[in-house]
Amino acid sequence: MQLGMIGLGRMGANMARRVMSKGHQCVVQDPNADAVARMVAAGAVGAASLQEMASKMDKPRAVWMMVPAGIVDKVLDDLIAHLDPGDIIIDGGNSYYRDDIDRAKKLKDAGFHYVDCGTSGGIAGQDRGYCLMVGAEQEVFDHLTPIFQALAPGVEAAARTPGVMGNPSNAENGFLHCGPNGAGHFVKMVHNGIEYGMMAALAEGFNILKHANIGKQQHVTDAETAPMREPQYYQFDIDVPQVAELWRRGSVVGSWLLDLTAKAMAQDPELAAFGGRVSDSGEGRWTIQAAIDEGVPTQVLSAALYDRFSSQGQAKFANQILSAMRAEFGGHAEKKA
Amino acid sequence: MQLGMIGLGRMGANMARRVMSKGHQCVVQDPNADAVARMVAAGAVGAASLQEMASKMDKPRAVWMMVPAGIVDKVLDDLIAHLDPGDIIIDGGNSYYRDDIDRAKKLKDAGFHYVDCGTSGGIAGQDRGYCLMVGAEQEVFDHLTPIFQALAPGVEAAARTPGVMGNPSNAENGFLHCGPNGAGHFVKMVHNGIEYGMMAALAEGFNILKHANIGKQQHVTDAETAPMREPQYYQFDIDVPQVAELWRRGSVVGSWLLDLTAKAMAQDPELAAFGGRVSDSGEGRWTIQAAIDEGVPTQVLSAALYDRFSSQGQAKFANQILSAMRAEFGGHAEKKA
Amino acid sequence: MQLGMIGLGRMGANMARRVMSKGHQCVVQDPNADAVARMVAAGAVGAASLQEMASKMDKPRAVWMMVPAGIVDKVLDDLIAHLDPGDIIIDGGNSYYRDDIDRAKKLKDAGFHYVDCGTSGGIAGQDRGYCLMVGAEQEVFDHLTPIFQALAPGVEAAARTPGVMGNPSNAENGFLHCGPNGAGHFVKMVHNGIEYGMMAALAEGFNILKHANIGKQQHVTDAETAPMREPQYYQFDIDVPQVAELWRRGSVVGSWLLDLTAKAMAQDPELAAFGGRVSDSGEGRWTIQAAIDEGVPTQVLSAALYDRFSSQGQAKFANQILSAMRAEFGGHAEKKA
Amino acid sequence: MQLGMIGLGRMGANMARRVMSKGHQCVVQDPNADAVARMVAAGAVGAASLQEMASKMDKPRAVWMMVPAGIVDKVLDDLIAHLDPGDIIIDGGNSYYRDDIDRAKKLKDAGFHYVDCGTSGGIAGQDRGYCLMVGAEQEVFDHLTPIFQALAPGVEAAARTPGVMGNPSNAENGFLHCGPNGAGHFVKMVHNGIEYGMMAALAEGFNILKHANIGKQQHVTDAETAPMREPQYYQFDIDVPQVAELWRRGSVVGSWLLDLTAKAMAQDPELAAFGGRVSDSGEGRWTIQAAIDEGVPTQVLSAALYDRFSSQGQAKFANQILSAMRAEFGGHAEKKA
Repeated sequence: MQLGMIGLGRMGANMARRVMSKGHQCVVQDPNADAVARMVAAGAVGAASLQEMASKMDKPRAVWMMVPAGIVDKVLDDLIAHLDPGDIIIDGGNSYYRDDIDRAKKLKDAGFHYVDCGTSGGIAGQDRGYCLMVGAEQEVFDHLTPIFQALAPGVEAAARTPGVMGNPSNAENGFLHCGPNGAGHFVKMVHNGIEYGMMAALAEGFNILKHANIGKQQHVTDAETAPMREPQYYQFDIDVPQVAELWRRGSVVGSWLLDLTAKAMAQDPELAAFGGRVSDSGEGRWTIQAAIDEGVPTQVLSAALYDRFSSQGQAKFANQILSAMRAEFGGHAEKKA
Repeated sequence: MQLGMIGLGRMGANMARRVMSKGHQCVVQDPNADAVARMVAAGAVGAASLQEMASKMDKPRAVWMMVPAGIVDKVLDDLIAHLDPGDIIIDGGNSYYRDDIDRAKKLKDAGFHYVDCGTSGGIAGQDRGYCLMVGAEQEVFDHLTPIFQALAPGVEAAARTPGVMGNPSNAENGFLHCGPNGAGHFVKMVHNGIEYGMMAALAEGFNILKHANIGKQQHVTDAETAPMREPQYYQFDIDVPQVAELWRRGSVVGSWLLDLTAKAMAQDPELAAFGGRVSDSGEGRWTIQAAIDEGVPTQVLSAALYDRFSSQGQAKFANQILSAMRAEFGGHAEKKA
Repeated sequence: MQLGMIGLGRMGANMARRVMSKGHQCVVQDPNADAVARMVAAGAVGAASLQEMASKMDKPRAVWMMVPAGIVDKVLDDLIAHLDPGDIIIDGGNSYYRDDIDRAKKLKDAGFHYVDCGTSGGIAGQDRGYCLMVGAEQEVFDHLTPIFQALAPGVEAAARTPGVMGNPSNAENGFLHCGPNGAGHFVKMVHNGIEYGMMAALAEGFNILKHANIGKQQHVTDAETAPMREPQYYQFDIDVPQVAELWRRGSVVGSWLLDLTAKAMAQDPELAAFGGRVSDSGEGRWTIQAAIDEGVPTQVLSAALYDRFSSQGQAKFANQILSAMRAEFGGHAEKKA
Repeated sequence: MQLGMIGLGRMGANMARRVMSKGHQCVVQDPNADAVARMVAAGAVGAASLQEMASKMDKPRAVWMMVPAGIVDKVLDDLIAHLDPGDIIIDGGNSYYRDDIDRAKKLKDAGFHYVDCGTSGGIAGQDRGYCLMVGAEQEVFDHLTPIFQALAPGVEAAARTPGVMGNPSNAENGFLHCGPNGAGHFVKMVHNGIEYGMMAALAEGFNILKHANIGKQQHVTDAETAPMREPQYYQFDIDVPQVAELWRRGSVVGSWLLDLTAKAMAQDPELAAFGGRVSDSGEGRWTIQAAIDEGVPTQVLSAALYDRFSSQGQAKFANQILSAMRAEFGGHAEKKA
């Protein structure tokens, strides 16, 4: 089968390589000519423009966009000028699912098919495969199934769930038709919301281990400092990187995120390369907004998101107010950082 | 009636003044001779030492300690060497209620009476009166009632609760016998826990108002930044100090903490005098630990406490881990602060 | 001055009464003829329809809508059919501020002026006055100022903020021109978000006090129950209604919400009339969504919202998953409620 | 090597089987004679009492206790009456690490060695192996290493961390000497705290998916209900069990907890066997208490704990207060459940 790939960054290039490695043909395009050249060297058909790309593809075309959420609409507008009715456009990035719903409607009126495909796997996906969450019309999903199969990890990537038998389902192979347009990115959005929560759970726990020797430190006695009680219970110098490694086998918290934490700590035990400003990139926010629309409590997922906001300095004015109140009612002078 | 006062800092000196203003006698002691001299000038009997203090008081003595929680045990040990069985010692500071329970037991064996008195009111208390939460034996509470009445705001400080009639209760006057030893500081501890939560609610809300013009700013389009959708809805330049003033009258969030916020912002609209490092001083922590022992959920009170920890830089290692994970799975470079 | 009032429910009727008590004329309308008749008896001009209302008013008309957020658009459509260019429509309910922005734009094109006015004060507002947060064009705000003054509590409702002098500002009188259309309901929205947080802070704290005798209860010893350590520290039978009363005077947590809590508990100490299903009505949700759009952390305000969702039973499926996981990894049988 | 095992419940029996399967001898004891008999049939040496157990073991004895945290002290007292100086007692259950520190001190004075061993793996551990977190004197840890090796999963249970080379460390094999006494259960405690957070992250996310069709439902329009905006974006009927299966391969949230969730949902898609009352059993609470002592923020881990408390009905009084406040300020009647 033939697939067009627009956007040859971290994700797009690796995905095209994986698709080709499974025997499919890729026609690739990117504003960066070097990126296109590298893929041509790897066996792809290169295109210097979207027009050229379209001209090199068989109909009905299937074109996968792997570009930042912020420029999808622009690329889409440019692209459809060169496509024909019946062609399929797949947005594999991190678009907001509401945009998918709106776009799909517009494109349908113009005769195109739209697919939203949430893609998890990160930079390791070329080897491990990509977990694909698809929103699409049924026939379009069916038509693209060979591509999804090529990208997905396959059932052998994990032991089958006890009690599940017969031919592996699509989900077991690592891709799923989640529903009509929007459903794919909706599921991916929630996936990322969960990711934020799991990451924070691990990070908070390791932070507790890191401070387990606080009883060894001297403590100030003044009205502005909570007294340290029972320092004898906080005398542990925990080897945090070793604990990360330890939990990878046999423990309840075993997970790919833990694997990555162990890897990062094995290279840099103090993580000194990082200052602690944690970005967020949309899906975490949208997850909470969906939860609120649904009236579903998400204490954990929200807390994880807000901690990132705080790490970005966004709590500053609130904290200034707190210090100001304390000065007003208690005459407390703010401690210096 | 006669009251001894040990500790003439922000709180102790003002409380002694209020007690004297209501016609009682105060015998005062503090390591700082100037502080003693100032109170003598204000009509108190001064004492250069705890021994001298004891010698100048009638039996049974009632001695109020207003010292940092961290040195209560030391002062107590020094003090009781000069007291006699039947004397009363009041801890009016912010001791952990568990210490009260343990101390009361020990002191009782030695023939003394112990009182734990949670005191709210801050530096404004000399004028407004102090809200007193008392843990004590019944007779001891009764004996000290004139002092509590002198310190408390009195019923006229607020309109009576609709439906409550007859002679004002102690609670309406602003002091309450909360239970046996420990109960006073237990109630004060929870009071402070609530205070953290109310402060945070106000601070978070004002922070939202402060950022209501975010739609006017330029936004970056990259994979590390959540896109700003619909900037047309974030074009407000809210006069935050005026809103604080506004809400003081007629609104549901009217409160003393809001009054103080309005005052602080009237003086310094940007609160530039504060950097945003918010101290915590024990009671907030103990409140959460009590809630956990009781199995009672405290999402809000805990969140307020943790935000203070974060403002103190204590989330740093957790945040480094998050950035490290993001680098591992997505190749995301950490943005600089 | 003359004011039209549409919607004579809890809020609208009381507001009209207050406006009339300050010497203004009210023309009132409501689908419920009895409600109109009651207001006519109180001195208002009644109208059986919006058409009749319009016919009885001087131009430029100023019509205040006090109707549920869900039907504002419908009422508005019906209303403007009877109005003339230059007339003013005020939405005093709890509309989403984004609707205000959109509505104002449309109405402006049709020659009308729109005002969004967040109104706090609840059923007590007729006596206490209403705190008004206004989004409007400057001239329209100026034109309506006599009405705002009539509704607002006035500066005497609270002591002036120390350091603030001269003629009281609008904010000190209890109303504020927060900005262009939308700004009024934006500020009101955040106000309600804060309200949720403050309410939760108080409620959580009282819940801790309520359970302070947990050490007196028998505890189960099995692998499914967290053991009770040190029950000797949880032996307090706190008189919770008296504590609510106590804190009203002199304490840091003094607030109108506390006054109301004390009132409710004075009538019904166990609050047995309530089952604990807590509604939310829009503003709390929108506050969080604004915070997320702004990238501002709101741990406390969100937690308060989610606790309401949980009280509505919305955590159920999540909790079933947790019990299922525990059964899977630990063979834990779920305890019965 | 020889190991005594006290407590043949879910965990103890399986651990003894695994130890024996690796060529070691087990002497087993349990109040339940049938449980002992079953283990004798499986090759263990049975003992009808602790005395008999001691008499059947070689010195220095190594006795592993696998009993509920609440009865450890009692079993320990009974046990040491039959042991000799130099013997080793291992607590493999879920004791509070502070008890370990205190117990180890006492036992050391009596000539015994104490080991605290946090054990993760649950009922699957017999096959998968157990992840072991050990607090012990160095020589004692070394002496017991063959047992730990038998219990642990071994390095082959997961791919080695990229960049880690040479002979596998203990941590890679699945056991770690975390530090002196207490360190083992400290690390296990934090492990379980993380577990709570990861579980909640998954559960909250699936709950959002479950409610993604809320836009299809009818919605009430009244002042007590937050209006549903844009129902067109909540029209998805997500197959939640299939999503759980999907994410097991290639996604960032892949984890053992997800595997278990998929398994539970494969058997019972609605999880109807569970009502949603989620127990907690100590470690989650202690984790938060440690974090607070350390001053480390744990928004996520705490939120997960409190949600369990809420599921147990412990928020009820707080929620009644909220409904009462709403009735007071807004005249809102509480909706029925």
